[in-house]
Amino acid sequence: MPHNIRVVTPITSKGFRKSEDLEAIGKNVFTVSHSEIDIGPGSIECEYDEAMSLPGTILKIIDAEKEGCDAVVIDCMGDPGLHSGRECVSIPVLGPCETAMHYASMLGHKFSVLTVLERIRPMFENQAKIYGVSEKLASVKSVDIPVLELEDDLDRTVNELTKQAIEAVEKDKSDVMIFGCTGMLGCAESIEKNLKSKGYHIPVIDPVPLAVNSAYILSKLKLTQSKHCYATPPEKGMVGYGEPKIRAVK
Amino acid sequence: MPHNIRVVTPITSKGFRKSEDLEAIGKNVFTVSHSEIDIGPGSIECEYDEAMSLPGTILKIIDAEKEGCDAVVIDCMGDPGLHSGRECVSIPVLGPCETAMHYASMLGHKFSVLTVLERIRPMFENQAKIYGVSEKLASVKSVDIPVLELEDDLDRTVNELTKQAIEAVEKDKSDVMIFGCTGMLGCAESIEKNLKSKGYHIPVIDPVPLAVNSAYILSKLKLTQSKHCYATPPEKGMVGYGEPKIRAVK
Amino acid sequence: MPHNIRVVTPITSKGFRKSEDLEAIGKNVFTVSHSEIDIGPGSIECEYDEAMSLPGTILKIIDAEKEGCDAVVIDCMGDPGLHSGRECVSIPVLGPCETAMHYASMLGHKFSVLTVLERIRPMFENQAKIYGVSEKLASVKSVDIPVLELEDDLDRTVNELTKQAIEAVEKDKSDVMIFGCTGMLGCAESIEKNLKSKGYHIPVIDPVPLAVNSAYILSKLKLTQSKHCYATPPEKGMVGYGEPKIRAVK
Amino acid sequence: MPHNIRVVTPITSKGFRKSEDLEAIGKNVFTVSHSEIDIGPGSIECEYDEAMSLPGTILKIIDAEKEGCDAVVIDCMGDPGLHSGRECVSIPVLGPCETAMHYASMLGHKFSVLTVLERIRPMFENQAKIYGVSEKLASVKSVDIPVLELEDDLDRTVNELTKQAIEAVEKDKSDVMIFGCTGMLGCAESIEKNLKSKGYHIPVIDPVPLAVNSAYILSKLKLTQSKHCYATPPEKGMVGYGEPKIRAVK
Amino acid sequence: MPHNIRVVTPITSKGFRKSEDLEAIGKNVFTVSHSEIDIGPGSIECEYDEAMSLPGTILKIIDAEKEGCDAVVIDCMGDPGLHSGRECVSIPVLGPCETAMHYASMLGHKFSVLTVLERIRPMFENQAKIYGVSEKLASVKSVDIPVLELEDDLDRTVNELTKQAIEAVEKDKSDVMIFGCTGMLGCAESIEKNLKSKGYHIPVIDPVPLAVNSAYILSKLKLTQSKHCYATPPEKGMVGYGEPKIRAVK
Amino acid sequence: MPHNIRVVTPITSKGFRKSEDLEAIGKNVFTVSHSEIDIGPGSIECEYDEAMSLPGTILKIIDAEKEGCDAVVIDCMGDPGLHSGRECVSIPVLGPCETAMHYASMLGHKFSVLTVLERIRPMFENQAKIYGVSEKLASVKSVDIPVLELEDDLDRTVNELTKQAIEAVEKDKSDVMIFGCTGMLGCAESIEKNLKSKGYHIPVIDPVPLAVNSAYILSKLKLTQSKHCYATPPEKGMVGYGEPKIRAVK
Repeated sequence: MPHNIRVVTPITSKGFRKSEDLEAIGKNVFTVSHSEIDIGPGSIECEYDEAMSLPGTILKIIDAEKEGCDAVVIDCMGDPGLHSGRECVSIPVLGPCETAMHYASMLGHKFSVLTVLERIRPMFENQAKIYGVSEKLASVKSVDIPVLELEDDLDRTVNELTKQAIEAVEKDKSDVMIFGCTGMLGCAESIEKNLKSKGYHIPVIDPVPLAVNSAYILSKLKLTQSKHCYATPPEKGMVGYGEPKIRAVK
Repeated sequence: MPHNIRVVTPITSKGFRKSEDLEAIGKNVFTVSHSEIDIGPGSIECEYDEAMSLPGTILKIIDAEKEGCDAVVIDCMGDPGLHSGRECVSIPVLGPCETAMHYASMLGHKFSVLTVLERIRPMFENQAKIYGVSEKLASVKSVDIPVLELEDDLDRTVNELTKQAIEAVEKDKSDVMIFGCTGMLGCAESIEKNLKSKGYHIPVIDPVPLAVNSAYILSKLKLTQSKHCYATPPEKGMVGYGEPKIRAVK
Repeated sequence: MPHNIRVVTPITSKGFRKSEDLEAIGKNVFTVSHSEIDIGPGSIECEYDEAMSLPGTILKIIDAEKEGCDAVVIDCMGDPGLHSGRECVSIPVLGPCETAMHYASMLGHKFSVLTVLERIRPMFENQAKIYGVSEKLASVKSVDIPVLELEDDLDRTVNELTKQAIEAVEKDKSDVMIFGCTGMLGCAESIEKNLKSKGYHIPVIDPVPLAVNSAYILSKLKLTQSKHCYATPPEKGMVGYGEPKIRAVK
Repeated sequence: MPHNIRVVTPITSKGFRKSEDLEAIGKNVFTVSHSEIDIGPGSIECEYDEAMSLPGTILKIIDAEKEGCDAVVIDCMGDPGLHSGRECVSIPVLGPCETAMHYASMLGHKFSVLTVLERIRPMFENQAKIYGVSEKLASVKSVDIPVLELEDDLDRTVNELTKQAIEAVEKDKSDVMIFGCTGMLGCAESIEKNLKSKGYHIPVIDPVPLAVNSAYILSKLKLTQSKHCYATPPEKGMVGYGEPKIRAVK
Repeated sequence: MPHNIRVVTPITSKGFRKSEDLEAIGKNVFTVSHSEIDIGPGSIECEYDEAMSLPGTILKIIDAEKEGCDAVVIDCMGDPGLHSGRECVSIPVLGPCETAMHYASMLGHKFSVLTVLERIRPMFENQAKIYGVSEKLASVKSVDIPVLELEDDLDRTVNELTKQAIEAVEKDKSDVMIFGCTGMLGCAESIEKNLKSKGYHIPVIDPVPLAVNSAYILSKLKLTQSKHCYATPPEKGMVGYGEPKIRAVK
Repeated sequence: MPHNIRVVTPITSKGFRKSEDLEAIGKNVFTVSHSEIDIGPGSIECEYDEAMSLPGTILKIIDAEKEGCDAVVIDCMGDPGLHSGRECVSIPVLGPCETAMHYASMLGHKFSVLTVLERIRPMFENQAKIYGVSEKLASVKSVDIPVLELEDDLDRTVNELTKQAIEAVEKDKSDVMIFGCTGMLGCAESIEKNLKSKGYHIPVIDPVPLAVNSAYILSKLKLTQSKHCYATPPEKGMVGYGEPKIRAVK
């Protein structure tokens, strides 16, 4: 039976993420399943949105393990529920931001994050600190387009991303680009091409496909998060979320 | 009218925090009010507990501003809702961990955190990174007593805290102690005395009184968090938490 | 009896600091007393000035404790005598730079220092290193006005500070401003207002009132510097400064 | 046609690496081919050995691209030729040390490297610096067995690795183990089991299989090192190595 | 007998380095001898060139000790063979880049490197990391002139170096300049003069004379690299480089 | 005329430093002259002592330049007056601590400081931060002997230094030793020998001879501190120290 990677989209806007886009990532080697959260924000564009998405996301991560998935990828660059979700399950849980930042660190001397709004720049800088790679982060640039409007005018989105990427290369001395919103899925090739036409050979990381493939190889190699530091939570009263049962480490 | 500092206890265990203990902090200069969250965990001892406490905590921070409080202190060393809560209100929001770590950085060359369980050591190390003071953190030590049992045998709690503090001074070269759980409120004097009897003149920071007093002086000096980086969240759909209205910056 | 916070102005220019400006900080809650040094420079604008101010400042810190003060604040952003003064007394000694940098770290993602002369930028960068918060320092900007001329044309001073603050926000991505000279006392409100009119909600920290209030709460909470790392100096010969008696820790 | 990942073993000891061990990594999804260098040391146990292995390794990386391979993995934890090899080809080049350190950073709060000889500890600490993850490195431990003797007494090797791993967990507070020599290939499961029997749930990373799988997903996702910072070397005279032709970026 | 410092030029272009320029450095106090490598690149302008220069350089460092030299300086800012060469001999081995970066750290608050090509900027940033001084590095600037063309139009070289130096001072807030290519030998005085005429009093470090003099004082003070961390390599097979005999520590 | 290096001993205890010990450093190549301060402490063992030594030290540094010396070395590991003295003169000013830390960084992977009293450990850690080499500092160890008693029982001093050095190598993984008090002048050879007899090949740096020789080569190479960041102080009133005339940069 092929490995099954579950992608959890931590927002409540229906239709934002098309399951077929995720399924295509597996390419006959593994399968990709999908779920969305039941409680939480319509999109994630600040610390408050991310905080409100956490309980719903954790519940879906727990469900993924119960339903037999082999690994989980959180479908948001804020990586909501990454540490807390890892405590609750034994299967690997990956965030696209953490994964992309580590791969970007390998692919070049410095990397930049191209995201939606300037206001979430500090969140990425804090994530880089926690993930241990802040020395490799050249800059966080934003296109000033809200998450749910990224697809409204795809040409504008691609143009703005290209413009920011060029600035990242020329001014911030960056060598690798990471999309700073999973809503930019599918645009990497265009940006790479635009950069190449300017003479810049810059890899552009589309974080969700990368994280899903990384989850697959962890599962294949029987590697998962350290249950030493991500130990299963102690049982105790939890008010207001139904009954989130935490499964013990076998 | 005196300044009113609201303490939000981000757990659902009734009676854990006695309001009179908080009121005593103001000492005729300012008043301290108190609230507890309605949804969330019975205590906070891991990333999962903290994540589940966030929505309830943010809602109570929003309430505090609506009810006319002048500042908010979150009553947990995980500082749940610190960044997200700051986005939602204009009054200052302080966390006891962040405040204690910054004051400890001033009071000595290096500081240690004395907490409940070894499993939350990484959380403190990550907080020190985000707060920008990890160079000042000598160590995180734990007494291996769950939060809700700290008061069951107060002598044991004090003895274990003393033992860890001595080790922090002698082995980790630490100069200042911070309590790593707000449930240790009131024990600082005993530990300081025990250390002095061993020849060590070490300040022991009780984080909640310190954070409440810091919140008071911020309010008095008309200082609050930067609404530039903690800007009010954009309005959008939020499913499952009633109606958390975010107040715009005036 | 109310707490008495002593402010020591470490320069020999008479009339630079008006005692009534300091007294106003206490606001019926605590009292603020004042002294100036007897030997040292007319103002502090370089490492040499600061070095020459040290002995005089330490002597006045020792005097403050002898005279029954509850805490000391050094009235210069170079924090001269901060570590050495702490060794000599048991009451808390705070510097406005250290205090402001730690509070600024709490109030925003990154902070900037707005100071008098470009030549003291390295001194602030070194202080941030020693205080353990250099990751939070976005930039040090200067208005190119000598200390003793700040009040000569207050409009110019405010205009230049505003200009540098705007550049700090826009170019250096700063979220909080700190005055980099205690001679700028009283200008914070104007700069904050000017920034707000440009659409920037940025707290501006006036370091002396903040440090005095912080000293007050340390005194109230019976916290002082760690006499473990700031141990009383060993007795020994000292030539040329009269008789600086160091008081032993009780 | 399946992806073909080339493993280059940068030593001249014949038979050290069995091709079938490498081929097994692909598991019907991709193929793994193998080459060894023609000039260089018999094993790599110091900076000198590594330096002498570089030209031979680079030549084999260039050959791999010429022969149509899709990606290259260097078979040594010193990652010899990682940066220089990346300049010479357009296909992705990965090192097991860099890859393992980045994955270990994701799988736990801190990681340790278990290697052969104490004398190469500084090399790993330097690699962690260059790869940007030194904050995540808890410790480098060694079993004091030379590379070419690891297989002589496999029980002893496993016992020593287990002993060092336990010390890494208990003393150095490490959460994830990385094998610090590719000659330890195949021992991960035993160490993980031994740790589990001591109550420690610690992932143990076998770097070569991880790097080979990572190379596969890079190739699949059409990602390669940034040819902006790893630009093709300028053509110039090269004495003494035959004719290493550098292929231009297409 | 005077101390004899050997300079090893790690490229195969004959005549690039004139022995008399090196001999002049000793000034009657010590002698300077010279050798060039037999295998390797014509010049060093990327990681590949540097890698290919390593075996030849190490062999010449071993020869220097055999021939009775008192210390070795590697004549390239990439410091090829610095760590590996130190393992192979007991006499001190210095690199001009490491030496210049440490002296520059002493001479000012921040320093810049002025080098030939933008493509080697990451190499200098990585060197600063390994040498432990990256906090002191303000910037790496390049004049866009290949190594072997530096002397073709010396006026252009000096003009471009001056232009980059001024930018380093004004934009990057740099206080000290280091030449980032040993081919710039002899130009320091001109750049210093040009900077002074712009009002900037900036020391310009010519790395080879500095490293040679530093090697002299190490030799004079009987100091050499720690043979604890740079221990003599274990004996083993080495294919393809003739017979590089490693001398044991006496 | 030979270069004349002035050593300024920043304490008022007569006879502590014998001029002939300093003169011997020059060895027919340059001369070493000596002065002691007129106001200040009998020895330096804390921040207070160091602060009180500053004005006297600066005055002697100014005198050295007036008297035609070519460079100055401050004879104390606290490097009192290093930055402030550099502002006041145009000749190079070096501190033994800064110089030794930078050379130690070159001679090994990590270094340790062996000093007199545990209480000055934080001062060395802060110096390493300011000098930009804290990543290279393995540990600061102390022998618990006051400065002025180091020579009373030289055998005990050497034995204690050896003991601490061995612990630094074995526990702190240190590769190079630095004497942490200039009063240990002349003991390096004994400690090195003792370490060698334990099997450890560890360079032991005697900071004053190293700094004096470094000052000599700076003078010879016409290099001095950057007068850009160490600019001459502005003229202003200075009360209580006679008339310290600051010489303008020519």
